[in-house]
This record gives sequence, C-alpha cells and structure tokens, in this order.
Amino acid sequence: MENYRVLEIKKSVFENNDREADELRRELKEKKVFLLNLMSSPGSGKTTTLKRTIEALKDEMRIGVMEADIDSDVDAAAIAETGAKAIQLHTGGMCHLDAAMTRQGLEGIDTGDLDLCILENVGNLVCPAEFDTGSSKNAMILSVPEGDDKPLKYPLMFTICDVLLINKIDVLPYFDFSIENCTKYAKRLNPDIQIIPICARTGEGIDAWADWLREQINAWRA
Amino acid sequence: MENYRVLEIKKSVFENNDREADELRRELKEKKVFLLNLMSSPGSGKTTTLKRTIEALKDEMRIGVMEADIDSDVDAAAIAETGAKAIQLHTGGMCHLDAAMTRQGLEGIDTGDLDLCILENVGNLVCPAEFDTGSSKNAMILSVPEGDDKPLKYPLMFTICDVLLINKIDVLPYFDFSIENCTKYAKRLNPDIQIIPICARTGEGIDAWADWLREQINAWRA
Repeated sequence: MENYRVLEIKKSVFENNDREADELRRELKEKKVFLLNLMSSPGSGKTTTLKRTIEALKDEMRIGVMEADIDSDVDAAAIAETGAKAIQLHTGGMCHLDAAMTRQGLEGIDTGDLDLCILENVGNLVCPAEFDTGSSKNAMILSVPEGDDKPLKYPLMFTICDVLLINKIDVLPYFDFSIENCTKYAKRLNPDIQIIPICARTGEGIDAWADWLREQINAWRA
Repeated sequence: MENYRVLEIKKSVFENNDREADELRRELKEKKVFLLNLMSSPGSGKTTTLKRTIEALKDEMRIGVMEADIDSDVDAAAIAETGAKAIQLHTGGMCHLDAAMTRQGLEGIDTGDLDLCILENVGNLVCPAEFDTGSSKNAMILSVPEGDDKPLKYPLMFTICDVLLINKIDVLPYFDFSIENCTKYAKRLNPDIQIIPICARTGEGIDAWADWLREQINAWRA
C-alpha cells in the first residue's frame, strides 16, 4: 500500500479568486499552518529541492507536501519516501491551482498536524503566476539549463515570487547562463526578490534556502 | 530599425476552435504553406533548434517563423539574424495560441512568399497541447535536463505531437536521463511518435530532423 493519497481536484467555481485566497490565508494563519507555493517549469527540480528541504527542516517542524500534477504519482511517491506527509493532487488537465483548488488539497492532506505545507504547483511558468493560491509566500525555481533570459519572457512569475532558487548550478560550466544577468533581469521586475543559487542534487546552497524559509516562518508566526 | 515586426495578439472569440483549425489548415493547403507548430517547456532550446533548422533548409524552401511569447522580442531578433522572415507575437499573458490567434500571426507575417511557416508556441507543456493551431504537423522538444519522466507528467503534449526532439544530448553525461526510458514512456502514449535526439548547440542530429521535416512537407504537397 502506498503511503500517500491521490486526490482528483475539481474545477473551482469561485468567481473571485483573490477574495477566496485572502480567506484561505486568514484561516491558515489561525491554524498556524504556513503555506508555501512552489512553482517552476517542468523539470527544473522542484521535487528534488523539496526532498532536500524536508531533510534540512524536518527536525524543527512538521512538514506536508501537496504534489500537483496533470497526471502520474511519481512525485508524491518520492516525497513519501522521505517520511514527510504527502498527497498527490491530480488537476485533470488544468494548468494551475487557484485558491479553491488549493483548499481541496489542504482538506485532503489534513493540515491539523502540520506547521509547514508546501504546494508543488503544476510545472508551468505562465498560468500558476496568475492565480493566488492563498499561500503565505511564493517561491520559484529556475534551473541553469533553462537560460538566464527567462525573466524577460515570463515576467509575471518573477514579479509575484518572494524568492528565486537558481537550481542545477553544478552544470554552470556546460551552459551559457550568467547568474549576474539573471539577477539583473529578475530584480528589474521585482527589486525585493531574494535569489539563492542551489544544487538540489548535491545539496549545495540548501542551507541558505532553509535559513530563508525558517526566517519567513518565524516572522509570520511572531 | 529591427528586421522583424511585433504583433499584439488579440484573444480569440471563436467558440469552436477545432472547426477554425480545420478551416485554417484547408486555406494553408490551398496556399501551399506548410505550418509547423513547435512546442516545449521554457528553455528547452526551441529558438536555437529553429536557427539550425533554417540553416539546414533555407536553400530548398522559403521559411518564416512566428515567435509567440508573453513578452520580449529576443526570439524574433535571434531568428531575424539568420535572414529568415520573422515576426514576434505577443500573447499579452495568454499561455497558448489557438487557431484564430495563429491566423492573426499568419496574416501579420504574410505567408504569400513562404513555403514553410513555423510557429514557436509559448513555452508551456500544458495549455498549448489543448488547442489545435491549424498546423499540418506538431513537433515538441524535450531537453535532457528536464528529465526522462516528462511523458508521465504531461501526457497530452506527447500524445498530440508527430515528432519529439530530445535536445541537449551533449549534456547526457551530467544528467540522469535515459533516452530508452523516455522513448518507452512516449511510445506508450503515442506509438507513432518519431523520436530524434539532437543537440541544437552543436548541430548533432539536425540532419535527421531536417530530413524528417522535408519528408513531411513533400508528402503533404504530393
């Protein structure tokens, strides 16, 4: 038997997503559950980064992960292996999660015993940026092979995120990617964005990312 | 002065996209313009692959490229440098092109002097798969750093494509990517899909891809 559930997410019927997101944020604050929304392109390393994040923080807080995907359970299975609470959300073709869909996931995973719940959104740099999920913070990953020009082409995603993880820095020698240029483009859209280079595969930079996340959670609780 | 135009695409008002796509395909057949719809994640190498494709085929046919992007003109500028006809389509936040939006692009680029017109769709493995653009063939790129499990997670895209280019094979030694597994997953969804490994940066495999494309165009004309 698998140690995670699979939940089929229904299309949301709420007209006003912003209001629904604010309401969800208020409820999560009351329940003391910090919701992090993690977004990226397909294949930039969300799940591997999450496994490292759980490893770094699991002794300090109770962590759950909601894995949203069009199809397949491979990500929830990978997270469940770490011992963290995991649920697979199937969006049935939908390209993003909005607040009402996120709420279905939160009810499915049951946040009663969680301090931190992470939503791994559908791999997509366009649509998820348009829908507030009710999260406390938005994080995104851009991996080195994708190129340093992505802020120019997907500006909204870089604008709405609090932190940008530049992943796969171990392959910098093999790609034409400038962290300096990427930082310049991202900061032009979002001067406050935090930028943390990491390599989820080797663990490089994960401490800095865990420190940032811990600080956000502590400031939010205070 | 730039040697490409920028066109702001308007949201389509057609209710029945499939019918609109069939009509566009019929018109393009009459005009003898082969439309290729090229899709992928952000950063998988669509534009570099197109530059190589133009290089390989420009002495045999007249090629135009429509570069669809949320924002920025960097891709049209890169294509225009090759001497091919180029137009930048700005989707204004929209995550895909449907047939009516593609028609706006075709009118903007003016296909009167073209044999092959390539649409570089918005970088996204989800939404573009759901909308028939009116193209004669659908092509997609999956790059090695994205991982060989992507057919499991974005099944519709792999189902509707006639050909899958596996790009960035020069970095296979640095990533955990099995061409065999990827082929197995993709063929399970779409037994007829052609799979061509390439490296757009070095040019490896581009001859095989150009051969495939030439054959499709010749068969379509016959």
